[in-house]
Amino acid sequence: MVGGGPNAFIGAVHRLAANLDGQIELVAGAFSADAKNSRMTGKQLFLNPRRAYASYAEMAVREAALPADERIDFVAIVTPNFLHAPVATTFLKAGFHVVCDKPMTLTLAEAKALRNTVRKTGKVFALTHNYTGYPMVKEARELVRTGKLGKILKVVAEYPQGWLLDKIEAAGQKQAAWRLDPRRAGASSCVGDIGTHAENLGRYITGLEIESLCAEFTSFIPGRKLEDDANLLLRYRGGAKGVLHCSQISCGEENNLNIRVYGTLGSLAWHQEHPNELKFIPKGEPVRILRRGNGYVSDAAKKFTRLPFGHPEAFIEAFANIYLEAVAAIRASLASKRFTGDFPTVDDGVMGMAFIETAVKSAASNAKWMKFPKL
Amino acid sequence: MVGGGPNAFIGAVHRLAANLDGQIELVAGAFSADAKNSRMTGKQLFLNPRRAYASYAEMAVREAALPADERIDFVAIVTPNFLHAPVATTFLKAGFHVVCDKPMTLTLAEAKALRNTVRKTGKVFALTHNYTGYPMVKEARELVRTGKLGKILKVVAEYPQGWLLDKIEAAGQKQAAWRLDPRRAGASSCVGDIGTHAENLGRYITGLEIESLCAEFTSFIPGRKLEDDANLLLRYRGGAKGVLHCSQISCGEENNLNIRVYGTLGSLAWHQEHPNELKFIPKGEPVRILRRGNGYVSDAAKKFTRLPFGHPEAFIEAFANIYLEAVAAIRASLASKRFTGDFPTVDDGVMGMAFIETAVKSAASNAKWMKFPKL
Amino acid sequence: MVGGGPNAFIGAVHRLAANLDGQIELVAGAFSADAKNSRMTGKQLFLNPRRAYASYAEMAVREAALPADERIDFVAIVTPNFLHAPVATTFLKAGFHVVCDKPMTLTLAEAKALRNTVRKTGKVFALTHNYTGYPMVKEARELVRTGKLGKILKVVAEYPQGWLLDKIEAAGQKQAAWRLDPRRAGASSCVGDIGTHAENLGRYITGLEIESLCAEFTSFIPGRKLEDDANLLLRYRGGAKGVLHCSQISCGEENNLNIRVYGTLGSLAWHQEHPNELKFIPKGEPVRILRRGNGYVSDAAKKFTRLPFGHPEAFIEAFANIYLEAVAAIRASLASKRFTGDFPTVDDGVMGMAFIETAVKSAASNAKWMKFPKL
Amino acid sequence: MVGGGPNAFIGAVHRLAANLDGQIELVAGAFSADAKNSRMTGKQLFLNPRRAYASYAEMAVREAALPADERIDFVAIVTPNFLHAPVATTFLKAGFHVVCDKPMTLTLAEAKALRNTVRKTGKVFALTHNYTGYPMVKEARELVRTGKLGKILKVVAEYPQGWLLDKIEAAGQKQAAWRLDPRRAGASSCVGDIGTHAENLGRYITGLEIESLCAEFTSFIPGRKLEDDANLLLRYRGGAKGVLHCSQISCGEENNLNIRVYGTLGSLAWHQEHPNELKFIPKGEPVRILRRGNGYVSDAAKKFTRLPFGHPEAFIEAFANIYLEAVAAIRASLASKRFTGDFPTVDDGVMGMAFIETAVKSAASNAKWMKFPKL
Repeated sequence: MVGGGPNAFIGAVHRLAANLDGQIELVAGAFSADAKNSRMTGKQLFLNPRRAYASYAEMAVREAALPADERIDFVAIVTPNFLHAPVATTFLKAGFHVVCDKPMTLTLAEAKALRNTVRKTGKVFALTHNYTGYPMVKEARELVRTGKLGKILKVVAEYPQGWLLDKIEAAGQKQAAWRLDPRRAGASSCVGDIGTHAENLGRYITGLEIESLCAEFTSFIPGRKLEDDANLLLRYRGGAKGVLHCSQISCGEENNLNIRVYGTLGSLAWHQEHPNELKFIPKGEPVRILRRGNGYVSDAAKKFTRLPFGHPEAFIEAFANIYLEAVAAIRASLASKRFTGDFPTVDDGVMGMAFIETAVKSAASNAKWMKFPKL
Repeated sequence: MVGGGPNAFIGAVHRLAANLDGQIELVAGAFSADAKNSRMTGKQLFLNPRRAYASYAEMAVREAALPADERIDFVAIVTPNFLHAPVATTFLKAGFHVVCDKPMTLTLAEAKALRNTVRKTGKVFALTHNYTGYPMVKEARELVRTGKLGKILKVVAEYPQGWLLDKIEAAGQKQAAWRLDPRRAGASSCVGDIGTHAENLGRYITGLEIESLCAEFTSFIPGRKLEDDANLLLRYRGGAKGVLHCSQISCGEENNLNIRVYGTLGSLAWHQEHPNELKFIPKGEPVRILRRGNGYVSDAAKKFTRLPFGHPEAFIEAFANIYLEAVAAIRASLASKRFTGDFPTVDDGVMGMAFIETAVKSAASNAKWMKFPKL
Repeated sequence: MVGGGPNAFIGAVHRLAANLDGQIELVAGAFSADAKNSRMTGKQLFLNPRRAYASYAEMAVREAALPADERIDFVAIVTPNFLHAPVATTFLKAGFHVVCDKPMTLTLAEAKALRNTVRKTGKVFALTHNYTGYPMVKEARELVRTGKLGKILKVVAEYPQGWLLDKIEAAGQKQAAWRLDPRRAGASSCVGDIGTHAENLGRYITGLEIESLCAEFTSFIPGRKLEDDANLLLRYRGGAKGVLHCSQISCGEENNLNIRVYGTLGSLAWHQEHPNELKFIPKGEPVRILRRGNGYVSDAAKKFTRLPFGHPEAFIEAFANIYLEAVAAIRASLASKRFTGDFPTVDDGVMGMAFIETAVKSAASNAKWMKFPKL
Repeated sequence: MVGGGPNAFIGAVHRLAANLDGQIELVAGAFSADAKNSRMTGKQLFLNPRRAYASYAEMAVREAALPADERIDFVAIVTPNFLHAPVATTFLKAGFHVVCDKPMTLTLAEAKALRNTVRKTGKVFALTHNYTGYPMVKEARELVRTGKLGKILKVVAEYPQGWLLDKIEAAGQKQAAWRLDPRRAGASSCVGDIGTHAENLGRYITGLEIESLCAEFTSFIPGRKLEDDANLLLRYRGGAKGVLHCSQISCGEENNLNIRVYGTLGSLAWHQEHPNELKFIPKGEPVRILRRGNGYVSDAAKKFTRLPFGHPEAFIEAFANIYLEAVAAIRASLASKRFTGDFPTVDDGVMGMAFIETAVKSAASNAKWMKFPKL
């Protein structure tokens, strides 16, 4: 693992997710830019002290030098955004597979370069758009894939949060500080951190591609260099329309990612805070609530389910599902086998960065409509 | 009553609402452009046959000719949109007060003209933006008014419906047919019919005024001359931002008007399909569900409540609340007293038409941002 | 109307319900035991002063003496329980049809006597077990009737309220005072006032008959002569089992009547506070939410629906549905026609009194099991 | 681990829960009565083959013979009920701490004997009444403890499931087969398997002790020797009353454990299927929804929270919380320190068995009231 030292949020999440199924063992890490912090974290995690490295560069070199049955199989990158690309590139080139947090890079150009590196090295690259790991999100995709919704007409995706309503970055809250700092987060805070999840979720479920968008960014809290709220209108190729809004200043909202998809034959709705349920309304019929773990859900969803119905699964399990698929791909690669897993790849990362850059461009032009770039 | 003949929807609603409290008696009507239908409806409603008129013009003349204690006190206009202005004008000029359905007119110019007529005649004019009649909407407004939300930052208003997903107007469904016909409905279907309710609701609760907007209209069902779906971004005077989307083709949605308002100190959410509850989240505190009929709700909401808590009230009661206030104003006017009721007026109608026209203009320019006109 | 004077709750509800559809006109009443109060109420309700009577006895005599086309068609009895039987008997014998609030009488013996009077006079007698007037309750009954639930195994009916948690009867709250007074309310408060609604609802939906029951009554608030909380176990003929609990001291509960019915092929759930929805789960299939007003609901439910889907209906409409059916029966009777309406009758009242008396007997024996009497 | 071989449900759950926090490593097991199955499971779990034992007896002996820094610290018992006591006794006497699934034993006598063994050996004994591991259950207990509910008057606990509506035990479903077999499950199926969770949850939150109870058991599916449905009335010491019902044949119910507690000052409600929320209604105030992860929740709940608000936690995390506390106690014991953890102990197991036996006795006497035994 690179990143995930003291007070980190997402690093701890990655570890819980990786632990869950007993398939992955954490054996080495460069947990902090501060060598002492890295060692301390290693100790807390029961690591061999020699494998709690002072820097990711050192880690890549030293791990690569270990015998094949001792060294790490892959690295999980859980740093702030600006380090994703350099760390990933270093480890890919050192011969390791990579699991990387999102957004993938700071810029679209960097994303494309990373895509090239992945292609050249032939290594597995998994991007933790974790919300697509939920079984009922996979069920949603199956409903669309199997035509239950007909032709998709409209998509409404929301990701409101409220945790940045106060200027906590000024008070030294680390999570807030780097997310609102263009050097470390990139050109966007709200869209980059969470809007991109909403976009990814919509694309995962519907398969629709954005043709153009109109993005209104606002920095409601004075002194912020990046937006803490964004409202977007979307036009998809093929004529569907979309609304996507996300916020970090919506008082009382916690992590309310949700999506509604309306087609000619049916509609669906899913809420991340109640992830075990999927609402599906076939035209002219009663509302149906599909619940994880039941016999009637698709194999695509069943595959990613651990507990019987009514025993709720949640965020960590969804996250762990990304890991399980990535690890299956890594295992296949180590065994020189082919495997097409159900996990977000470097291509999703490029798409995500294109979305962020297009939104930033639109917002910077006073919310004019912008074409989505060719990738 | 003018309008409300066979197969009419809103006319029947007006009658239920007007009946409810035993304050209003229906004594005359021109229920249909077809004299026979008008008479038949009159009969069904136990009217004196002589007062079931063949036309609204005849009705205005003949009622005005009756002795003061026999003639109608006011007229309720429940026709398709294109008749609102001529009927209202006729009755105002004949000396009657008016309750009129929305949208108020076909055009903004017509709305302003009607405003002049109302001002000149000094009659009461009530516009049935019925959703503002709900007690918990009034409670929402009180929360904003009394500063519980702080400064408003963001408003999300939705009004998805799905009843026009099939081309039922081609099959002769009357409600659909006139709403999609520019001659009878005006320049907009979805925004004119329901988007305007969402706009009115937002304005009623927050008091915010739109500074400019960007509107994307779509006619998803081939052959329609007016839009059946609309997505809007809003900029309010003072810096707040808004998202407003409405739809008539969102499969499975019934009449899902809802609004969320986010301020610096708290947020609120209200859903028309569960109207007895209002969600309020003060910053850093548990979610609060305020429920109609309890001692803790404001006097503004209590005034419009008929039943104890837990005995749900709904659409008709809200509608009847508009009538109760209008009738109180009419009674005051008849007694030459002053009364400032809590009901939508001709000014709300002008505002609504300005909203519709600005949205239509933006949509016609490929969703460019448009300034809201001065009124 | 008899009863329904100043500060009455249910009298006002009856009037709203009777007004709603414009089918019923209130023309006479004995609204209070106090003649002055009765006159005052009559005036407020725009009645002819001569028909605001000083007593129900006077009213029965004087109305009966009026010409047939002037006198009342039926009387609505909305007094405290102890007056139901004498008033109903008086009016039945005077030749009038009766709509009466529940519970029907003070005792089972009195109920049977009233049944005899109804049978002898041949008049229409409707008991306002209003909750069976909800369209989605009728839909629930249809699901059972048409075998969608298979054989019924278990019924859970709840009716928790919290309004008597404080000793408001001591502070002169009239509604509380008579409901907790054995002379005016009968041998039970909680079961008589609301438990009987839960029992009636269960019987209406399932058709099951109670074979025996075990009832635990508690008077939680010191000084009360009647129970303010009751928990019951039920055994139905045919082997089904039931749980029924009701309460007036459950803090925070408003009017939370709800029922769940479990069969071999499916289950259903309905909550009075969200009356437009009915949950139905066919075995092995997704949860279905049936919503009032949709094309897929049964004719039995559609018949009692006024508004399109998504325009919520509520308590008053359900109450008015009882009135509509009773009035249809009265109209048929006046025209010497046959009509079997869907409304609670004197037989339901007898059944309800048997339920109350059996529960009281069980509770008085320290919650021993008691057989349900033959009726 | 003892138990948890192929097709086991709860064994896999224990492993997920134990893995989650990276504090526990599975190093040995007797996973099945079949030695081959045990070895196979050991292999799947990456165990040293020598530590996948053929029997629990062998495991206890051989592990005890290992050097202190190599042998297991504790055993997790996840077998059918009848083995809990013998396995636990064996390992306790061999010097190991124990984590054991519930119900603790087959009989109350056996439970008391096990309690003696635990006391004599001084080892840690944790019983996985996992539902008390949920943070918002701990929050519920805090509300009661800190007087927010006042004096408790009424408790309603439900645990409906529907998975045994079909006679799947006849078709060889292993989970169903042993749970309905008196030899392996004990004298009760429904109450023993799930009713005991509801009882434990109620006791955990309220601290109330049952004084007597009346239990109605039903075997709805023909041929079953144990009940598949149970309805109970409860009397608590101090005057509170309770309703507890549980079922395995309630069609469409999944794992719907839920509880409502009503006091003189407030009430609370919690549903296991939506575990991140706790409803709390202070008398006369709006409903409050307390949500896991917020600053306003008590330290008691915060301690058992891993993720920020809005990132849902669920069943496995709650289960892991029991493990975390048990492991902290074990660690303290190994270090000869004192530690009073928040986890269910052998005393809870004795209480649970007393509850089951009293319910069985009442049911066997045609649902007479039975006193709760002294323990």
